[in-house]
Amino acid sequence: MGIVVVGSIGLDDVQTPHGSVRGVLGGSASFFSVAAQFFAPVSVVAVVGDDFPPDYLEMLRGRGIGLEGLEVVAGRTFHWHGRYGADPDRPVSLATELGVFQDFHPRLPEHHRREPFVFLANIDPVLQLEVLRQAEGLKVLDTMNYWIEGKRTELLATLRKVDVVIMNEQEARSLTGLSHIMAACEVIAGYGPQVVVIKMGEHGSLLRTPEDLFTLPGYPVDRVVDPTGAGDSFAGGFVGWLARRGQASPGAYREAMVMGTVMASFTIEDFSVRALMRADAEKMRQRVQRLREMTLLPSLDGLI
Amino acid sequence: MGIVVVGSIGLDDVQTPHGSVRGVLGGSASFFSVAAQFFAPVSVVAVVGDDFPPDYLEMLRGRGIGLEGLEVVAGRTFHWHGRYGADPDRPVSLATELGVFQDFHPRLPEHHRREPFVFLANIDPVLQLEVLRQAEGLKVLDTMNYWIEGKRTELLATLRKVDVVIMNEQEARSLTGLSHIMAACEVIAGYGPQVVVIKMGEHGSLLRTPEDLFTLPGYPVDRVVDPTGAGDSFAGGFVGWLARRGQASPGAYREAMVMGTVMASFTIEDFSVRALMRADAEKMRQRVQRLREMTLLPSLDGLI
Repeated sequence: MGIVVVGSIGLDDVQTPHGSVRGVLGGSASFFSVAAQFFAPVSVVAVVGDDFPPDYLEMLRGRGIGLEGLEVVAGRTFHWHGRYGADPDRPVSLATELGVFQDFHPRLPEHHRREPFVFLANIDPVLQLEVLRQAEGLKVLDTMNYWIEGKRTELLATLRKVDVVIMNEQEARSLTGLSHIMAACEVIAGYGPQVVVIKMGEHGSLLRTPEDLFTLPGYPVDRVVDPTGAGDSFAGGFVGWLARRGQASPGAYREAMVMGTVMASFTIEDFSVRALMRADAEKMRQRVQRLREMTLLPSLDGLI
Repeated sequence: MGIVVVGSIGLDDVQTPHGSVRGVLGGSASFFSVAAQFFAPVSVVAVVGDDFPPDYLEMLRGRGIGLEGLEVVAGRTFHWHGRYGADPDRPVSLATELGVFQDFHPRLPEHHRREPFVFLANIDPVLQLEVLRQAEGLKVLDTMNYWIEGKRTELLATLRKVDVVIMNEQEARSLTGLSHIMAACEVIAGYGPQVVVIKMGEHGSLLRTPEDLFTLPGYPVDRVVDPTGAGDSFAGGFVGWLARRGQASPGAYREAMVMGTVMASFTIEDFSVRALMRADAEKMRQRVQRLREMTLLPSLDGLI
């Protein structure tokens, strides 16, 4: 089954304790689509400027990612410059140049409106709502603190229309005012989305559905080179897997959490989408197996 | 197999968003021993003043907890006054009166020196080292930020002599200067203890042994009434279970992590040791089962 993603495609300058890069492929839709394309057909709705390197377009196209919904307009591409210190969950944004993204109004190409899955990356909730009106599939939404603080009312109106929300724990706390994550999950479910996914960085992630509560640790990578795009790669693995399974059952949601975790673990091992591009089925199987071993609770039946 | 615990027995005044109590039973050795006695014989080495309520001694004795190593001396009992806000991991200490604890020099009664398990609660690392010289069993140690910051050299000398260290993630970060918990675990193992257990509050806990890496979520309690003693109850369930199993195998360590998590989950549901005292085998079995369900990773064999 197919997925349409609406988000940013941009160019990043990133400094981390392990090195720095300039002008690399970034943006939520980039990480999402590269992660998801391992599992299902993906089409991107985004905008770039006429300065965007054709090589990056070729790279995405080479992966079979649909770019009919990608507008190329006169002006500069969205550009982010960030620096990470010791804490991978808290980058410092040194500069954010919106460029052509400033006037972006996403339009789903007609034949994408009936895709069974739509992912709304962390763009303005007003734009997200515009997209929701054009889409028919299972609606999955990400957001960020900038919108939680700046457009709370609009975000709450948008949340009422989605099936699944994926956010990180700081965002969940900020949205609900609750520090206890389980309690925050219940409140967020009350805002609309039946399914709530909370990403907690190294602490793993949590899935709450009407039938299920599931937790999972982060994958223990040896070296976090660059955390940029981890959340979008998680979402790509998650939605990609649901699309591949063609269902949104409790079992499929658990599987999707595992695959989201695995895809994020690749991303953080190198800059941009480099490590993600090197992923393959064998590496995925190894990481799934490792996660299964790490989380296998012994039975205490008959011992207590 | 028997356990000897060296720590504090005290009186607490606690305020939380769910209420407040005054003069209730507190202290690391209290929570530890009440949690551990469900699984194995426990003896306490601690000190209280002559103001200590006899009812509390009767309560501990009624649970079969050995008090031959408890000194009762003239003076005031250790007293802690704390307040919790929204974040259960960060209490505010309003007052700490050491009282008779100030001059405490733990002496293990002769017949306790060969207990197969010894737990050193978060007292001064110099005292912990004194105890280690008197003990022969498997040595499990807890510590706290106060000593990490104030007696780092002494703490490192003590860590070289222990088999298992249990600490929370803020302490692990503070001790190693590393924000990445997995990396911090490896560094701590290099200080001496073969087995490292990191407690992460609602985020669960992590076990690192030379053979194993295991993660486990926090138990999802409906209402955290008072987090005081959660860590010591975890340690009590953990060491208690190892003693019950009479082994320190990789499998027994995983089981012990589960039981530590379950015992901590009881403690935080009420003030002092109240909810912990109400625990029973049936409630434990239910919580172990719930944790197993929450963490059961689906197999993706043949699907990737």
